[in-house]
Amino acid sequence: MKATAKAHTNIALIKYWGKRDETLILPTNNSLSLTLDGFYTTTTVTFRDDLSSDTFFLNDQAITGEQFNRVSTFLDLIRSETQATNLYAEVRSTNHVPTAAGFASSASGFAALAAATTRALDLSISDQDLSRLTRQGSGSACRSIYGGFVEWRQGTKPDGSDSFAVQVQPAEHWDVRVAAVVLSDTMKKVSSREGMKRTVNTSPFFSGWVNSIPYDLELIKQGIKDRDFEKVGNIAEANCLKMHATTLGANPPFTYWHATTLAVMQEVQTMRERGIPAFFTIDAGPNVKVLYLPKDEATVKKALLDIPGVHDVIVSRSGQGVTYL
Amino acid sequence: MKATAKAHTNIALIKYWGKRDETLILPTNNSLSLTLDGFYTTTTVTFRDDLSSDTFFLNDQAITGEQFNRVSTFLDLIRSETQATNLYAEVRSTNHVPTAAGFASSASGFAALAAATTRALDLSISDQDLSRLTRQGSGSACRSIYGGFVEWRQGTKPDGSDSFAVQVQPAEHWDVRVAAVVLSDTMKKVSSREGMKRTVNTSPFFSGWVNSIPYDLELIKQGIKDRDFEKVGNIAEANCLKMHATTLGANPPFTYWHATTLAVMQEVQTMRERGIPAFFTIDAGPNVKVLYLPKDEATVKKALLDIPGVHDVIVSRSGQGVTYL
Repeated sequence: MKATAKAHTNIALIKYWGKRDETLILPTNNSLSLTLDGFYTTTTVTFRDDLSSDTFFLNDQAITGEQFNRVSTFLDLIRSETQATNLYAEVRSTNHVPTAAGFASSASGFAALAAATTRALDLSISDQDLSRLTRQGSGSACRSIYGGFVEWRQGTKPDGSDSFAVQVQPAEHWDVRVAAVVLSDTMKKVSSREGMKRTVNTSPFFSGWVNSIPYDLELIKQGIKDRDFEKVGNIAEANCLKMHATTLGANPPFTYWHATTLAVMQEVQTMRERGIPAFFTIDAGPNVKVLYLPKDEATVKKALLDIPGVHDVIVSRSGQGVTYL
Repeated sequence: MKATAKAHTNIALIKYWGKRDETLILPTNNSLSLTLDGFYTTTTVTFRDDLSSDTFFLNDQAITGEQFNRVSTFLDLIRSETQATNLYAEVRSTNHVPTAAGFASSASGFAALAAATTRALDLSISDQDLSRLTRQGSGSACRSIYGGFVEWRQGTKPDGSDSFAVQVQPAEHWDVRVAAVVLSDTMKKVSSREGMKRTVNTSPFFSGWVNSIPYDLELIKQGIKDRDFEKVGNIAEANCLKMHATTLGANPPFTYWHATTLAVMQEVQTMRERGIPAFFTIDAGPNVKVLYLPKDEATVKKALLDIPGVHDVIVSRSGQGVTYL
C-alpha cells in the first residue's frame, strides 16, 4: 500500500493552449514537449487504515486549501476505479523544480502522484492509461509519463478516452538542451488557467492558432526524427509566438511578457545572427526557455546571464519518463 | 504656379494594417486617427518652365534616390490629370516631425505635397478628392487632410474611388493629448510596408484582425462622440495589441517591440492602476504613443521620462487639417 515515483517536468515545443472541456481537461489542439532531466518531483503515497482523510506534505510542509483539494480530488478519481473507496492516503512530495523557474511543477507533480498512487493500490495500468489518468489532474502532466519527445493527442471523444500522450522519440535519440532563464521579476497577473479560458472565449485569433497546429506538428516531428535543430527550433519559437499572440486579442487583452522577456528573446535572435543556433520558447509566464545544442552550452549560458534583469539560468538535458523508486 | 501648404501627422487609434491593392494603396480595413498639432510638414511647390525634371529639397537638403522618386511619381499622378504634363516642379519641404519620434513623416509629407501641388496648379479640388489623391502617395496621409478625429473608409471599388478619409469630429470637439515616447534605440528590422505585406500573406491571425475592426470602430466613434476617454483609450490600446499580435503569426514571425516598448506599456498600465487614465498605442516600430487628458500632462510626462531606455517625451494636442500659407 506504499509506493514512490519520480517524474520530470516537460517543456512544450508545440503549446497546449485552450481547453474544450474544463472538467475532463481536454485540449483544443495536440501539443508536443521535451521531458527535462533537471526538474522533477518525487512522491511517496501510503494508503493507511488509520487515516480519516488524505494528508499532503510538499517539501515536508503540510498543505491545505486549494492545493490540497486538487490532490485529494485526484485521489478520489483513482479510488473510484478501485475497491479502496474508503481508504485514505498520506502523500509526501518533494519538488526539485525551483518555483521561480516558471515551470509548472504541476506537470511533474501530477505525473509522480498518479504513478505512485496507482502503484500503491497495486493497479495494473499501461503507460497510456496512466497518461490518460494523469491528464485529469493537470493537462500538461500527461506528457511527463514519457521521456524524450512526447506528443499529447487531443482526441475527439467527449469522454476523453482518446486524449493521452505518446512518446515520439526517447531521450537517447537526440541530446537537445534547455536553459531555463529565470527573471528577477516573475510576477504574473493572469493565471494560465484564466488566461487560456479568456483567450478561448474572446480572442479573434484563437481559430487561427488552432488551425495552424497540424502543420507545425507535422514539421516538428519530421525535424525531430531528422535531428534538424534549425527546423525544430524555428517551429518551436514560431509556435510560442503564436500562442502569445492570441492573448493580445483577448478581451480584456493581456500579455505574460515583461520587458526582460523581450530582452531575452532579442538576445537569442542576436545569438543566431552570430551563428549560434539557439531558439526560445515561453510558457504562460514571463520566463524564457532557450533550446540549444550541447557544444554551445557555455556560450549560451553566459550570454543569457549577462542580460540585465536575468536572475538565474538553469540548464537541463532531456529526461526519462516516470520511474519507481 | 506656386503654393505653400502645411499638414500635420496623425496617430491611428484604429490601425491601418494590410493592403488589398499595393499600387493604388487600398486598405483591408477602415482606420481612425487623431491629427496631431505638434508634428507637421510645410511644403512649397513651384512649377517652373526652366526645369527639365522635378527637384526635391527636404529641410534644405537636395534629395535623390527612392525618396525623390516617390515624390516625383506622385507629381506625375497629379500632372496626368491636368494639361501640365510637361511642367516640372521644385518641391521644398520642412519636416517638423522628429524622425526618431517614430511618426511616419510620410503622412504629413504627402498631405502637404498633395495640397501644395494641386493649389500651385490651380486645380479646384474638394477635401474628399484631395484625400483620395493623397492616399495614393502614402496611405495614412489621406487622414491628415482633416483635423481632429478622422476615419479612412476603405471602400470596396477596385479603382479606389470610394477609398478616402472623412472627418469624424473636429479638434475643438475634445482636448485629448498624445505623448510621443521616443526610445533610445529605435531600430526596426522590418519596414512597415514589408511587415504589412508579410502579415497579410502569411499570418493565420490576419482574418481575425480584419473581422474585429467594424466592432472596434463603432465603439470608438461612439466613445469619441460621448467624450468617453476610458472607452476610447481601451479600444485604441486593444486595437494596437491586435495589430501587433498579427505580426507574431507571420512567417517568419517578427515584432516591432523592444524591451523598453514593454516597459512603457507596463508603466501606462501602472498609471491606470494609480487612477490616471492613460492608454498606449504603437505603430509599426518600437516607440509608444500615450493618450491622456490635459489635467494629467505633467504626471504622465514625468512617469514616462523616468523609464530607463526612454530618450525623450514630446507632447502634442490635437491639430487642424491642411492649411495654405
